[in-house]
Amino acid sequence: MPEVKLTEEYGFCFGVRRALEIALTNLERGISFDSLGPIIHNEYVVGELRRKGVEVVDSIEQSKKSHVLVRTHGVPPEIYERAKEFGKTIIDCTCPFVAKAQWWAKKFYEEGYVVLVIGTKDHPEVIGIVGQTEGKALVVSSQKELDVSLIRNKRVGVVAQTTSRLDMVEDIMGLLVKEANEVRFANTRCNTTQRRQDEVEELSREVEVMVIVGGKNSSNTRRLYEIASRNCKRAYLIEFPNELMEEWFYNVSTVGVSAGASTPPEIVEEVYKKINILLKGGTYGERKVDEG
Amino acid sequence: MPEVKLTEEYGFCFGVRRALEIALTNLERGISFDSLGPIIHNEYVVGELRRKGVEVVDSIEQSKKSHVLVRTHGVPPEIYERAKEFGKTIIDCTCPFVAKAQWWAKKFYEEGYVVLVIGTKDHPEVIGIVGQTEGKALVVSSQKELDVSLIRNKRVGVVAQTTSRLDMVEDIMGLLVKEANEVRFANTRCNTTQRRQDEVEELSREVEVMVIVGGKNSSNTRRLYEIASRNCKRAYLIEFPNELMEEWFYNVSTVGVSAGASTPPEIVEEVYKKINILLKGGTYGERKVDEG
Repeated sequence: MPEVKLTEEYGFCFGVRRALEIALTNLERGISFDSLGPIIHNEYVVGELRRKGVEVVDSIEQSKKSHVLVRTHGVPPEIYERAKEFGKTIIDCTCPFVAKAQWWAKKFYEEGYVVLVIGTKDHPEVIGIVGQTEGKALVVSSQKELDVSLIRNKRVGVVAQTTSRLDMVEDIMGLLVKEANEVRFANTRCNTTQRRQDEVEELSREVEVMVIVGGKNSSNTRRLYEIASRNCKRAYLIEFPNELMEEWFYNVSTVGVSAGASTPPEIVEEVYKKINILLKGGTYGERKVDEG
Repeated sequence: MPEVKLTEEYGFCFGVRRALEIALTNLERGISFDSLGPIIHNEYVVGELRRKGVEVVDSIEQSKKSHVLVRTHGVPPEIYERAKEFGKTIIDCTCPFVAKAQWWAKKFYEEGYVVLVIGTKDHPEVIGIVGQTEGKALVVSSQKELDVSLIRNKRVGVVAQTTSRLDMVEDIMGLLVKEANEVRFANTRCNTTQRRQDEVEELSREVEVMVIVGGKNSSNTRRLYEIASRNCKRAYLIEFPNELMEEWFYNVSTVGVSAGASTPPEIVEEVYKKINILLKGGTYGERKVDEG
C-alpha cells in the first residue's frame, strides 16, 4: 500500500510568520518601505510583496523609501548606523531567536571570550552575529575547519546559527571540551529547527524517498535535505510542486515530505497531494475516467 | 618478532608526586600525622608510610595526632571545619587540578547554575567537589544517567572529575547542548590523564594484548583499562608483577604496557621486564642454561 507521510511541523516558522505580519501591517498603515534582501527564501512571497511596492534592495542607500525592512536574519550594527546617517527608519523583523544569538555574541565578546560562531560564514544571519564582535568572531561549520591553535587553553564563548545541525554543534563542542580552558555555550539553535530536524531524522529512516520543500538558498531547508539524504535511499529538494518528477516514485511505496521554515504551507500541501497521485499511478491534474 | 611497548607516560603523576613530597617533608621535619584515607591507590607506598608512623584513618576524630593529611582527591569543606573543631591542622595535599574543579563547582553554584559533575558518585574526589555546592550538584557518569528534566532549559555549569574519559564528557555535553539554555564547561580534566588516555588509545590499537598496571580502586587506572579493553583483543589490569600469568601471552607477539597515576615507576618497569621474558618463552626469575 503506497503511502505519503508529512511531518507534523511544516510551513512558516514563528520568525517568518512574525516578519510577514510586521510587513503587511506596515503596508496596511500606508508606510512605504523596501526590503534589505528578500524577506524570505520564497520567490512567490517576495513577488507578492513586490506587487505591493516593496522592492528588494542590497543596501540602505539604494532605497528611495523612508523605511527599510530588516528581515529575520538580522544585520550587523553598521546597518543601523547607516540607516541613521541616511535618515531612514528601520522596520526590524530580526527573528527573536536570531536577536538572542546576537546578544550572546556581544556579551561573550565584551567579557573577553574568544567568540566562536557555528554556522556558514557567508550566511546573512552569521554576518549579523559576527558584526556584534567587531568582526572578530571565528566562524566554522565543522570540526575540521577549526584552527585548534586559536582556541587551545582559551576561554571560548560559543554561539550557534539558529538553523545549525545538532550533530555539527556536538562535534565542534567535542573538540572545545578537549582543548579549551573554559567553554560557554549559549543555546541559540531555534526550537522549530530542532523539531523539524528531529522529525525529518525519524521520518527519513522509515521511508524510501524523502522530498524536502523549500528555497535552495535556505539554510534550514538544506539542513533538512542533508539529514534526509543520510537516512533514506533518495532525497530531493524542490521549491515548487512542478519540480516533482514522475520517475522519482517508480517502484516506491513510501515517501516522506517536509519543508523549510520559509515555505508557505499551501505549497507543501500541494506537493503532498501531487506525490500521492503520482505514487498511486495517476497523472497529476488529470481526472481519471473511472472516477467519473 | 615479539615486542613489548611501554607508553611514554607512566609512573606517578604531578599531583601524586607532590603529595608524596609534602608527606615526606613533613615527616623529615618531625611532624606526626595520619592520612585521611590511603594517600594513593598503592599498597606498597601506603605500607612504607605506615612504617614511618602514618596511619590511615577514616575520619578526623579517629586520629590521635596533631596533624591530618588530606590526599590528592581533596575533601568537602566540612572536613576543614571538623579539623578546626577538633583542633587538628590539615596537611593539604589536594591535587591543584582537583582544587580547580572544586573552585569552579563553587563558583557555578554561587552564580545560580545547576551544577553537573561528570564523574563517579561515590569517588572521594567527586564527594569533595559536590561538597562545594552544599551537596546540590548532580553527578552522572554517562548520558543515560542524566535526568533530562533537571537540566532542560536550565543554565548548567559542568565540572568533570579530573580523571574522566573524554568520550563520556563529549557524550553528556551533546545532550546538554541540545536541552539546556546555557552551558558553561570548565575544563577540569587533567593533562596527564588526557595524555595517558591518548597514548593508551593509540597503543591499544597496535597491539594484541594490553597490560595496565595500577590500583583496582583507582579511577584513572580503570579508565585506561576500559579504553584498552575496547581496542585490543585482551586487556588485563594488575597491581603487581606477580599477577602476570604466563598463558596470557601464548601465541601473542605484541603487548602494550601502561600504568595509572599512582603506580610507582619501578613497578611498571618490573612488569615490562617480566612480560618481555614471558613473551620470549623464558621463565621469569630463572636464569636460562644456555645463557650462562
